[in-house]
Amino acid sequence: MLPLQLQPESHVPLYIQLRDQLRALVHGGDLRTGDRIPASRELAVQLGVHRTTVANAYAELESEGLIQGHVGRGTFISGNGKGLKITPPAPPVLNGNAGIRWELLFADERGEEALARLTAAAPENAISFVMARPAEELFPVEDLQVCVNAVLRREAREVLTLGPSDGYGPLKEALLAMLRQEGLAAKDENLLITDGCQQSLDLICKAFVRPGDTVILENPTYPGALAIFNGSRAHCLGVPMRTQAEPGTALGLDMESLEATLAANRVKLMVLTPDFQNPTGTSMPLASRRKLLEMCARHQVPIVEDHVYARLNAHEERIPSLKQLDRNNLVIHIDSFAKVAFPGLRVGWMVAPAPAIERLRLVKQMTDLHTDQLAQATLAEFLRRGMFARHLARMRKVYAARLAVLDEALRKRMPEGVRWTKPQGGMCVWLELPAGFDANELLIHVKERGVLFAPGRYFYAQAPQPNTLRLGFAGVEPEQIVRGVQILGEMLRIEMRKRQRGVRRAERSRVALV
Amino acid sequence: MLPLQLQPESHVPLYIQLRDQLRALVHGGDLRTGDRIPASRELAVQLGVHRTTVANAYAELESEGLIQGHVGRGTFISGNGKGLKITPPAPPVLNGNAGIRWELLFADERGEEALARLTAAAPENAISFVMARPAEELFPVEDLQVCVNAVLRREAREVLTLGPSDGYGPLKEALLAMLRQEGLAAKDENLLITDGCQQSLDLICKAFVRPGDTVILENPTYPGALAIFNGSRAHCLGVPMRTQAEPGTALGLDMESLEATLAANRVKLMVLTPDFQNPTGTSMPLASRRKLLEMCARHQVPIVEDHVYARLNAHEERIPSLKQLDRNNLVIHIDSFAKVAFPGLRVGWMVAPAPAIERLRLVKQMTDLHTDQLAQATLAEFLRRGMFARHLARMRKVYAARLAVLDEALRKRMPEGVRWTKPQGGMCVWLELPAGFDANELLIHVKERGVLFAPGRYFYAQAPQPNTLRLGFAGVEPEQIVRGVQILGEMLRIEMRKRQRGVRRAERSRVALV
Repeated sequence: MLPLQLQPESHVPLYIQLRDQLRALVHGGDLRTGDRIPASRELAVQLGVHRTTVANAYAELESEGLIQGHVGRGTFISGNGKGLKITPPAPPVLNGNAGIRWELLFADERGEEALARLTAAAPENAISFVMARPAEELFPVEDLQVCVNAVLRREAREVLTLGPSDGYGPLKEALLAMLRQEGLAAKDENLLITDGCQQSLDLICKAFVRPGDTVILENPTYPGALAIFNGSRAHCLGVPMRTQAEPGTALGLDMESLEATLAANRVKLMVLTPDFQNPTGTSMPLASRRKLLEMCARHQVPIVEDHVYARLNAHEERIPSLKQLDRNNLVIHIDSFAKVAFPGLRVGWMVAPAPAIERLRLVKQMTDLHTDQLAQATLAEFLRRGMFARHLARMRKVYAARLAVLDEALRKRMPEGVRWTKPQGGMCVWLELPAGFDANELLIHVKERGVLFAPGRYFYAQAPQPNTLRLGFAGVEPEQIVRGVQILGEMLRIEMRKRQRGVRRAERSRVALV
Repeated sequence: MLPLQLQPESHVPLYIQLRDQLRALVHGGDLRTGDRIPASRELAVQLGVHRTTVANAYAELESEGLIQGHVGRGTFISGNGKGLKITPPAPPVLNGNAGIRWELLFADERGEEALARLTAAAPENAISFVMARPAEELFPVEDLQVCVNAVLRREAREVLTLGPSDGYGPLKEALLAMLRQEGLAAKDENLLITDGCQQSLDLICKAFVRPGDTVILENPTYPGALAIFNGSRAHCLGVPMRTQAEPGTALGLDMESLEATLAANRVKLMVLTPDFQNPTGTSMPLASRRKLLEMCARHQVPIVEDHVYARLNAHEERIPSLKQLDRNNLVIHIDSFAKVAFPGLRVGWMVAPAPAIERLRLVKQMTDLHTDQLAQATLAEFLRRGMFARHLARMRKVYAARLAVLDEALRKRMPEGVRWTKPQGGMCVWLELPAGFDANELLIHVKERGVLFAPGRYFYAQAPQPNTLRLGFAGVEPEQIVRGVQILGEMLRIEMRKRQRGVRRAERSRVALV
């Protein structure tokens, strides 16, 4: 049997672990040309993993020329991979009489997917802190209806036919006006409409990142960003987030680690959320922003600034965005309507230097021609009529109140040893349980009591901390926040007592043994 | 000076030509390790191409380990590429004081982009045969308005919040009912909602195709498909389309070429439009479809069937789709609403074996979370109320009539030697001018008279025929079709006379010389 040892706890996908270990066995001489390796089904059973995981690892090794399948005979080591040849991966092969084997997946299960499954079987009336999402019950539906009808009365034909790939003209105008008012001077050539921040990240990845390129992310970070850059075979490096105030260091991205990472790697680009970061809720202070821009200018590293939570400041003060501070054309600024209102309408935007936008526009055209125009035109109307500004003002108050309720509930209900962040806005608070606790296990218990949250491990680019979790509060009503945190506190105390009993028992048994 | 010779006429992008020629020089020993090659700016001037073209070729060669840049010294041959190393491409470098050099584009100018530019400066009231697009003036706007309002009254909250990545439930149900009625039995697990066929192709490419994989396309084909597969560095092979009835061969894809191509290559997948193909308008007969499925089952090659024009049959008879005939789970069937109504609403779908859909769903989630739900819900309502069926029935008559008008006008106005296809539906007719004519040149002349069409060269995967052109007739009113073809005929005759005079003059001068 092959000496393989997979770490399901690791954020490194299982198939990558398996690929690397098999490659090491070949390079180390444990496996030699001509050796037969187990069928994927067989190895999957041995390792207790899904067959797709093994199939993926094999596909990677085959494309490196390390192994080769022979129909009816099995899979064999075909080289030591030193004189690396680019051989096309095997064509899909027969699966009995079912035809093509479609399950030759590229990537393993992803964080978002795991989250979706964890929360799928939740009861109807569960208190869910899982998502960072707006309050649906407060959507200004009538305003939206007014806008849709105005659009269809006035400009139906233009809206319903094929449009420009950079975006619907009237929406671009309305957005530029809003940005100008907020203190960001941009021209039409600096603006691209997309289907939202997820697509913006995807387009950026397609336009600028190639397999093997190094990309810096925050650690922890938004799992959708991880999925994209891992999926494109970029090399993702996570720079730690400072979530607790400590003397001598600022909150937000750890600037010393960042400097070291930039110095030691050829970095293609970095992705950051300076305001109310997802998942930690922390913001980067102004001094760090200036320092960051200086560093990135020095190392010539472009910055993708995710600005999607920035308008949701609980207090008056807002820190200028990286894009506002940028004097070197370093920043691609991505944003969307989804966190203020209507994530079901898929419309977002990017602000970037004109040559970057021109390239991204071509990629956008190739990807899906353009963004849905009924949504674009409706949101343009929503902006022009001042409805967006009005709704945003209302939501800022609502979310600030919910954040205060959450913080107070946590202070009241959390046992000693639990720490959490103190965001000044946004949609999430990040909790650290005492070391040794596993948020996944806690979730199993609180789910039985009808409470859900997002375990922290899915947000890490590397070194996942199993004792962390994210509470998305914006979409949860105040009474539910109070009740949810109460249950969370109760279950945590129960777990802590169990643990202490376990420790005492272990101590007693140790005494008896000695 | 390096012996380089680029063919701007070729459909092979210039940067690919340049890359291949430089590689050949290294492999042939003309360039050796340590040799310095010209800076991209310098070589661009020498070759008369855009600097991006050279930069792209260099980036490719660098990622293959063939060349390497040294800051301040230049670019050098760094190996013969035999012991191929994967080295990350260079990071963006300084561009004076403007910061990042954003213009390091991956791909050259694409067909769609070129088309857009050719037609951009057209007069307001031009007769445009450029696009394969529905008749905007006949959009059932009031029906759509009824649907939007019904949706927002009934299910606003659900529609406006984040939804499932496989599609909005009610739309999936309505589509499955329509497909069942049309004779395609599919389940929920076989259906994925996308932003339209362009996105479907992009998702398929992301999910199943890797750089270096071979993909078969029709030649000529839809430029959007070419853009995607070329953009992902797949190896695109075009199989010729038979556009004129000849004894012994069927119309549509050349089955003998296909068999030879499948036998000689490891093909990852193929993309076809069996019904009213874009750009030629031809359909694949039933016998060819059966033969195609048998061949692909034998070679285990999945087929992507673009079904987007299939409902627009001018006569009653419809040939069963490949998906309907498929007994081996070979076919991914892609379709959308865009050719019947509302291309401005970006909603399409795929029908495929469940494991393929599961993988595509994950890719979709990673790409843009899900398709706009206001558009999805509105189109679900449009289907359920029978409005889609009604509009389709109406449009089939309108387009059949326009097709007949076009064919008659061509018979009346085209000079001898011009051939065109006889589609039984769809949106395009394909013209072949006499050999030696260049449709691009003709376009320059007819554009002055206010008529536009799409030159054929942009539709070729290889071996572009400059004497071809596409007429998209569905969005052009009958009187305009008649007028447009008349102008086309006049200009063609003028060009032909010029040519004959040129020939006579050449003959005379030859006589005089002898």
